Amino acid sequence: MSPAADFLNLPERPAKPRQSGLTHVIDKGLSLRQVEDMFSTSGEFIDIVKLGWGTAYVTGGLEEKVRLYESLGVAAVLGGTFWEACLVQGKLAEWKGFISGLGLRYVEVSDGTVELPHAQKLEYIAEYAEDFTVLSEVGSKDADVVMAPYRWVEMIGAELEAGAWKVITEARESGTAGVFRGDGEVRTGLIDEIAHAVDVNRLLFEAPQKSQQVWFVRTFGSNVNLGNIPPEEVIPLETLRLGLRGDTLLSVTSDGPADREGI
Amino acid sequence: MSPAADFLNLPERPAKPRQSGLTHVIDKGLSLRQVEDMFSTSGEFIDIVKLGWGTAYVTGGLEEKVRLYESLGVAAVLGGTFWEACLVQGKLAEWKGFISGLGLRYVEVSDGTVELPHAQKLEYIAEYAEDFTVLSEVGSKDADVVMAPYRWVEMIGAELEAGAWKVITEARESGTAGVFRGDGEVRTGLIDEIAHAVDVNRLLFEAPQKSQQVWFVRTFGSNVNLGNIPPEEVIPLETLRLGLRGDTLLSVTSDGPADREGI
Amino acid sequence: MSPAADFLNLPERPAKPRQSGLTHVIDKGLSLRQVEDMFSTSGEFIDIVKLGWGTAYVTGGLEEKVRLYESLGVAAVLGGTFWEACLVQGKLAEWKGFISGLGLRYVEVSDGTVELPHAQKLEYIAEYAEDFTVLSEVGSKDADVVMAPYRWVEMIGAELEAGAWKVITEARESGTAGVFRGDGEVRTGLIDEIAHAVDVNRLLFEAPQKSQQVWFVRTFGSNVNLGNIPPEEVIPLETLRLGLRGDTLLSVTSDGPADREGI
Repeated sequence: MSPAADFLNLPERPAKPRQSGLTHVIDKGLSLRQVEDMFSTSGEFIDIVKLGWGTAYVTGGLEEKVRLYESLGVAAVLGGTFWEACLVQGKLAEWKGFISGLGLRYVEVSDGTVELPHAQKLEYIAEYAEDFTVLSEVGSKDADVVMAPYRWVEMIGAELEAGAWKVITEARESGTAGVFRGDGEVRTGLIDEIAHAVDVNRLLFEAPQKSQQVWFVRTFGSNVNLGNIPPEEVIPLETLRLGLRGDTLLSVTSDGPADREGI
Repeated sequence: MSPAADFLNLPERPAKPRQSGLTHVIDKGLSLRQVEDMFSTSGEFIDIVKLGWGTAYVTGGLEEKVRLYESLGVAAVLGGTFWEACLVQGKLAEWKGFISGLGLRYVEVSDGTVELPHAQKLEYIAEYAEDFTVLSEVGSKDADVVMAPYRWVEMIGAELEAGAWKVITEARESGTAGVFRGDGEVRTGLIDEIAHAVDVNRLLFEAPQKSQQVWFVRTFGSNVNLGNIPPEEVIPLETLRLGLRGDTLLSVTSDGPADREGI
Repeated sequence: MSPAADFLNLPERPAKPRQSGLTHVIDKGLSLRQVEDMFSTSGEFIDIVKLGWGTAYVTGGLEEKVRLYESLGVAAVLGGTFWEACLVQGKLAEWKGFISGLGLRYVEVSDGTVELPHAQKLEYIAEYAEDFTVLSEVGSKDADVVMAPYRWVEMIGAELEAGAWKVITEARESGTAGVFRGDGEVRTGLIDEIAHAVDVNRLLFEAPQKSQQVWFVRTFGSNVNLGNIPPEEVIPLETLRLGLRGDTLLSVTSDGPADREGI
């Protein structure tokens, strides 16, 4: 927070490194300078940066960028689709060598596009959890695939059990799949069932659209974990968390979410 | 305008500092370098920069950014929601100290989110007008709130009377509230009533969407005051004003708007 | 491609300068630094940069930008609407002097906004083809204008015959006109008729929206020519071409498009 401004009564936000209130940013090809720009204004609000899907494979200057993120105190992680492409091609050993060579400490395991027996996914999670911090992702990238809430709950529980640090709920870069309808509307009943069964702090909700972020902050409070945040939306999201934007000005207070009962 | 290009017959645009033809940009967390980039290509088209809603409270390097804007000859102003948050928390004295400390010369007063008796809003406008250039804003951020045209006219008139330099008509960053419908469509009848009663040069229409900008330029001509313009849309907007884009190529001429009678 | 990553089996992509697999980027006012940023991560994927519509007329530092693009090995070209504005004002001689002064090697000729007898458009194409590489564009910017497929085929054929290097199919910056419906949906029957009659490598499809890019890559393979790509979508598009994003992971292979028969 800007030192010049500290006179408002705002919700408490944990300091980095934090376990809740995470902001997970999607980088789909930022240059080094663009990364620096993002951190110069909003670095303290950024916890994890995902190099979206397979973009890391083709982005020039990848090693420098990973080193830059590390020097800024932020974990970079390759997108789950990168892992899925390697899985399909039988190149997981190469994938592991690649991320180890880059010095990455986090990995993401997903099955948003490929078919993968869940037992096998759990084995991968357990294997990687020995060497890395594992983010696993539940949900399909196909907007037409609708999975029953109890299946979400079962899969999330099993993946945490297998060693995942947090489980990501799928939304895509666009926010139009997984826990959202094709038009971006939140599947509120589904989220309610998941949050009833799983500790919300173990979940990281992809929520690229502002209306989705508003819903999560109003529902779970300032320190909900949110993901796939575009770089230019990090500061706007922080203002939503703090009640400094119209949408949450009257609902977020320093006492927590005002309308938790509303879901 | 690029010196290399001056052979077309284009509408007259007043030089800075200007009273009409204003472009009011929304900055929701730009870095210093991003501000420099914006000015290197489009500085002469930018009149006012709003640090959107409460973003200034959390943006790193705020003082440097305000100084940079001043050095570039542009007024920076905090978003009205920042003021509303201070109003709600009883911190308007701190707010005034904060903006004075930053050296800001412009302020925005709004009631887009909070309830505020209009007489009281007018008092604030009058108070601030003694020390600052005041932009006041009319309209709700809630897309479901529809106010009768005569109320818009009354409020705008009273706020100008109280000392506002320009009155902003609300649209949000998204362009989906206030003078626009939830899908971004212009409430043309409302604008027509307002423009019938109030000097258009005293109004600043928030119009973040291109289709909205096109409508205002076609209706009121090249030198309509437009606000909440995203940084990357400053040059595109200037081409709309000048008839250098398909949408206005045949309707904007050096003689003014071609289809003023069309509204 | 990042040297660190070369272990996946991906579709072949021709090296620059290439005749197919072109990525044509729209620049609507980038600063020099933003151009450098774009090239630092994705320069090898960029073939042509269009300075959109009339933006070049008002963008500060234009000469330096054109020189920068040339030094990066990429052709810059003024938007077709710039040419149309000069046509309407009887300033084509000045236009030609302007682009020659800038050292541009490519030109775009279009009639998306103005009315122009086709025979006359063909004469312009033939004239410019003597000195420049000509991109001509077919299709209206008016989403309500629907032209029969046989007319598209005739016009494209005649413009190639007249000397156009590639013919661009209109979509606008928004992807909501020409070969797309007003909501961005691909006019698949129209594209099928065009591709049946014209060598796809001589076409450059404007496709600013991701769903449109996905459709073209799935239909015509990794090396389809795509245009009006926003700067931040160059890397995402490259991943679509290579099957490194969920949308094409299972449909694009090193053997070419999997579902060509699907159209």
